Amino acid sequence: MKLHNGMSPNGARVSIFLAEKGIDLPVQPVDIMQGETRAEPFLSVNPLGEVPVLELDDGRYLTESIAICRYLEALNPKPALFGDTPEEQAFVEMWNRRMELRLFNVVGDVGRHEFELFKDQIEQVPAFASVQRGQFQERLKWFDAEMSDGRAFVAGDSFSVADITGMAMLLLCGFAQIEIPQTLTHARRWAASVMSRASWPMPPA
Amino acid sequence: MKLHNGMSPNGARVSIFLAEKGIDLPVQPVDIMQGETRAEPFLSVNPLGEVPVLELDDGRYLTESIAICRYLEALNPKPALFGDTPEEQAFVEMWNRRMELRLFNVVGDVGRHEFELFKDQIEQVPAFASVQRGQFQERLKWFDAEMSDGRAFVAGDSFSVADITGMAMLLLCGFAQIEIPQTLTHARRWAASVMSRASWPMPPA
Repeated sequence: MKLHNGMSPNGARVSIFLAEKGIDLPVQPVDIMQGETRAEPFLSVNPLGEVPVLELDDGRYLTESIAICRYLEALNPKPALFGDTPEEQAFVEMWNRRMELRLFNVVGDVGRHEFELFKDQIEQVPAFASVQRGQFQERLKWFDAEMSDGRAFVAGDSFSVADITGMAMLLLCGFAQIEIPQTLTHARRWAASVMSRASWPMPPA
Repeated sequence: MKLHNGMSPNGARVSIFLAEKGIDLPVQPVDIMQGETRAEPFLSVNPLGEVPVLELDDGRYLTESIAICRYLEALNPKPALFGDTPEEQAFVEMWNRRMELRLFNVVGDVGRHEFELFKDQIEQVPAFASVQRGQFQERLKWFDAEMSDGRAFVAGDSFSVADITGMAMLLLCGFAQIEIPQTLTHARRWAASVMSRASWPMPPA
């Protein structure tokens, strides 16, 4: 197996996952900033023009960061980052999706519609980026309320893939210059905790 | 267990899943059009104000349609709609996420930023809806190319949850008055096939 990966929030999800699992995989670096994902030969690997991609030993390409992580978990069950029992797995899935759809994707919208990098790739709508900035602040309040029971991690007492999706959101917040407001103490406690892990890809501020 | 559900594309994903699995669950109907999801007592069930929600026997509430489906699959493994082997499961996950993130969510953006229903819920940006309408046409071309190998279903020879997410996308296309262009024969072949299933929730046109 070989991982095609580059510097991106979704690429980071897989890199953090590998670090947390202690899995060592050969990596083929892909330079997104230089346009490698949007040209051949990469487009034959993934016509959607995105990393990460896991090349399997039979030559097939598995895309989508969470599909890659889930497959690696099946091959390397411990530590279980997708939960152990069916109930745990259900709530980890719920929380991973909440972190992705309600937070990560919203700040992703801000990036896609504001960042210079995407100017030539999509038709940017600044008014939409502005709406999503506001929406993200509302979602942070919801997340803070959810974390107010004092639990250590997003899906409960154990670190899970839902925290990893949250870490990717924090990376995007850095790029979009969004800080979690001081008043959201529970969200900030969680953020400080995951950013202190050995798997966190950025140097501490 | 009890399912809180109402008329929505995500609600339909769980309803179709139940029909395909042959699972019978008590359902508590929730009237979205009358605002039930955005008021108490429902907001205590799901502060995000959305169906579907699976109420477990221990009183916990499981939200997010795919988390609910995955949990029901763990309790009722056959037929496997999330795949059987780790490889199958990986590619079903990849395809379910592609159908959701690349197609379903894009036409969902159109709805949220165009439909009267959402006028009082979000700050609508018509220019963004228009960009997403164009983006959706590009994504349909990509999907058609992917299906041009003649396979029966989205993730291969077996019907899976990725087809169900695709069916939810087709429901949204109906509301947004978007048709798959005549030229996209592979996408249309797939759409006709899934719309002929007993689980399809709308009467044929």
